[in-house]
Amino acid sequence: MPTRINHIALVVDDPESALRFWRDGLGLPLERTEDVPEQAAEVSFLPVGESHVELVRPTTTDSGLAKYLAKRGPGMHHVCVEVEDVSAMLERLKAGGFRLIDEQPRVRDNGTRYAFIHPEATSGVLVELYETPR
Amino acid sequence: MPTRINHIALVVDDPESALRFWRDGLGLPLERTEDVPEQAAEVSFLPVGESHVELVRPTTTDSGLAKYLAKRGPGMHHVCVEVEDVSAMLERLKAGGFRLIDEQPRVRDNGTRYAFIHPEATSGVLVELYETPR
Repeated sequence: MPTRINHIALVVDDPESALRFWRDGLGLPLERTEDVPEQAAEVSFLPVGESHVELVRPTTTDSGLAKYLAKRGPGMHHVCVEVEDVSAMLERLKAGGFRLIDEQPRVRDNGTRYAFIHPEATSGVLVELYETPR
Repeated sequence: MPTRINHIALVVDDPESALRFWRDGLGLPLERTEDVPEQAAEVSFLPVGESHVELVRPTTTDSGLAKYLAKRGPGMHHVCVEVEDVSAMLERLKAGGFRLIDEQPRVRDNGTRYAFIHPEATSGVLVELYETPR
């Protein structure tokens, strides 16, 4: 069973403008900003309770993220739900006939495991599953 | 300072289809479904960690929510951030020049206080502020 909302991710073209609201206006601390090469993005992480708000700026023009931004403008990109076992959840969803983007977990250099579920399966929102690191 | 993501709200036309994923697929418990007259909607609440996923079905055709659904289809509607004092946060945001939807908190029959911030201020996502009940 999912344990928490790990993060919500907004795609933005101008992180400084986004930070003016999320950090300076709302008062969330900016924990860090880092380059995430496998997403071709620079991501700012702002903690709120047990979750984070992530502000994601594409660093190329040809990624899925960059095209999403070009088509729709800044806004909500995905919701990330944390689970204990991404592989088990993907199997369960596959058995249920839900449309997945990743049939197997992707693995980051640091070992964290995640996968995306197609918005068609979720009532219209891109959902990331993120596995609690062991 | 905000204390948590209180909920994320999806607008849906078919709650049963949405529940097939969020409850039956992902495994979130369905806490309750209730009529929310001031939103002209029926809302299903599914807890995840300290937050909820809310599945919101418009019950009329002329509300803002219903028009949003008709225009965009099912999907993400808003993110709700919990704060200790909605009035104080609205004053702070007003002073910062951020575009608000509600200049004063709305108050539900049960006394809970909330307000919406315009997506123009937030980098494209409708944000609700919800005050921790005292």
